[in-house]
Amino acid sequence: MASSAAAAAQAATPLLKDELDIVIPTIRNLDFLEMWRPFFQPYHLIIVQDGDPKKTIRVPEGFDYELYNRDDINRILGPRASCISFKDSACRCFGYMVSKKKYIYTIDDDCFVSFFPPFHPSINFASVRSVSVKVAKDPSGKDINALEQHIKNLLSPSTPYFFNTLYDPYRDGADFVRGYPFSLREGAPTAVSHGLWLNIPDYDAPTQLVKPLERNSRYVDAVMTIPKGTLFPMCGMNLAFDRDLIGPAMYFGLMGDGQPIGRYDDMWAGWCTKVITDHLGLGVKTGLPYIWHSKASNPFVNLKKEYNGIFWQEELIPFFQSASLPKEADTVQKCYLELAKQVRAKLGKVDGYFNKLADSMVTWIEAWDQLNPPKGAVATANGTAKSK
Amino acid sequence: MASSAAAAAQAATPLLKDELDIVIPTIRNLDFLEMWRPFFQPYHLIIVQDGDPKKTIRVPEGFDYELYNRDDINRILGPRASCISFKDSACRCFGYMVSKKKYIYTIDDDCFVSFFPPFHPSINFASVRSVSVKVAKDPSGKDINALEQHIKNLLSPSTPYFFNTLYDPYRDGADFVRGYPFSLREGAPTAVSHGLWLNIPDYDAPTQLVKPLERNSRYVDAVMTIPKGTLFPMCGMNLAFDRDLIGPAMYFGLMGDGQPIGRYDDMWAGWCTKVITDHLGLGVKTGLPYIWHSKASNPFVNLKKEYNGIFWQEELIPFFQSASLPKEADTVQKCYLELAKQVRAKLGKVDGYFNKLADSMVTWIEAWDQLNPPKGAVATANGTAKSK
Repeated sequence: MASSAAAAAQAATPLLKDELDIVIPTIRNLDFLEMWRPFFQPYHLIIVQDGDPKKTIRVPEGFDYELYNRDDINRILGPRASCISFKDSACRCFGYMVSKKKYIYTIDDDCFVSFFPPFHPSINFASVRSVSVKVAKDPSGKDINALEQHIKNLLSPSTPYFFNTLYDPYRDGADFVRGYPFSLREGAPTAVSHGLWLNIPDYDAPTQLVKPLERNSRYVDAVMTIPKGTLFPMCGMNLAFDRDLIGPAMYFGLMGDGQPIGRYDDMWAGWCTKVITDHLGLGVKTGLPYIWHSKASNPFVNLKKEYNGIFWQEELIPFFQSASLPKEADTVQKCYLELAKQVRAKLGKVDGYFNKLADSMVTWIEAWDQLNPPKGAVATANGTAKSK
Repeated sequence: MASSAAAAAQAATPLLKDELDIVIPTIRNLDFLEMWRPFFQPYHLIIVQDGDPKKTIRVPEGFDYELYNRDDINRILGPRASCISFKDSACRCFGYMVSKKKYIYTIDDDCFVSFFPPFHPSINFASVRSVSVKVAKDPSGKDINALEQHIKNLLSPSTPYFFNTLYDPYRDGADFVRGYPFSLREGAPTAVSHGLWLNIPDYDAPTQLVKPLERNSRYVDAVMTIPKGTLFPMCGMNLAFDRDLIGPAMYFGLMGDGQPIGRYDDMWAGWCTKVITDHLGLGVKTGLPYIWHSKASNPFVNLKKEYNGIFWQEELIPFFQSASLPKEADTVQKCYLELAKQVRAKLGKVDGYFNKLADSMVTWIEAWDQLNPPKGAVATANGTAKSK
């Protein structure tokens, strides 16, 4: 299986054209797409317009896209629209829900961020039109086709049960090393591919403040599976996943307008996702591809958004590390509803926000099922896992 | 603590001269040391001569070393010498025991391996004098100082409790990314640094047979912690560890002459070590540095040695994955003796060999304590862990 999967990954590299949607949250014109044209143009885009729905978003010519603003979200989901964040890039998860494709790639246009330095808390960042996520180059100077690498990652198995010291054993020129149990070499279906960033690293506000000049110039030529039982900080800036396998767990939570927290949307999704992929026997990869992150967000603004999260996270990590799902939870939806129950029971006492979040998690699943009615029984995560 | 540890790692880079021994198992002249002279000459070598003790081993001029042959081992350990393998590079662990230093670096001279291709099962491989472990070059063409990188790895903390997507956060130009809990940023003391190999990868016999031409040319510029709860295949070819923190767990088992298994010596040590470091709150790193492995061992000979291991490993991995040590096991020795007990109870039924191995594990600890009498109480693994 391993080798046929690897072969499939190779053959399918420029493909999946009709099986993948690119989801982009934005509040502004999408001129940044020009840079990505050679790679993105064959694909369908789902643009989730945040903020004022009256504003017109310009999309460069030649792209195939659908665009949803807040009015669309409210119309489509009705009262359930309350689970979709407003004035925060967390709104992107609406795009995951309306997609009908098997795979999703999501990328920031960094619409909410600004230049740095200089910075000042009084600057209106929404008014700054900077493009900060660009195509990166590999060490040979060639433009990196991030999407192609994500597809390779998703189409080849993961190895969550035992660490391979030569990293992804399914890559060309690599394999399982001596001492790797043969019974584990089939691997597990890959649900998530987490890509990285050159130049501006994805640091929290305190680290940004302490290391304003730090840049990531280290190109690490590796893809690896995050082992079962290990949590990681999932960044939504450069992320792909198999919607059939894990889509309903990719809820980016309640952030932004009216919420006491921001910049934890992708983290929340990552922690929920990891607990569920571990439970369902799926894999999560991290490493290649890199994108070029050219502008740092403002650390003062970020600190304000992160402030509560920095405290809460100390309770959230032990919660997710010890979270256990029952055997009966055999679909992503069931897992997610069970997790929502545990969030309410165990995190409600940390802050009332988590009760609201637990409610939204339930609403999210209702909305997901509304837009993705089960085919026959529950379509996600059983049949597809086996068909890999 | 993190930043002071990082600073210490930098300042100490060419140092530890009086705190580190290099352990080399061999059956032949050590001409390969010429290549390593610029890096190894400042350090003390412990050479463990395997096979015929009457043979004279030539060591290039100018190296500071002590050499032990089988007669020495028998004289020093008496009946306990039975725990040290004969006619197998597993004998190297005797060197760990006689060292009085805090750190060990061990490297193969690959004395038991040969050229490939061509190969033939009838060749007497012990007679072939090939040097197969050489200094590797980094992508800029500079010779890699493997020892320096291992020391850096050992002197900076590990991060076993949460995955950092930018790899080792203590390296220059890296840090913890957004979403990494602040309470975990002190890390854990690093007990083991596992280095890799360019050119000939460390494959098992079946993979060697199937991919005779595969070479590892991918230089992955990363060091990472193997997460808590995850096992890995530890290769003894390019390995460093903190003897005070984990030494007594670095037993390379019973291999070679009279034993039904070979080429699992380092694997066995790695699995035991990982269970114990996890229990004691220590870290294991893998990645840089690379050495250059120029000659593959003979896959037919390897298959003969590995044959039983390939089957047994399917039982060993679940055993180690579920092994649990009691709270009272608060030193490496206590952990190791407890593990020996569990090996006898649970693996004895897989094959009688494991009863013999369990006995040897106990003998090994007795021999360790004989050569390393406890200072005050038990010297290893409590004071040192705290002093980091």
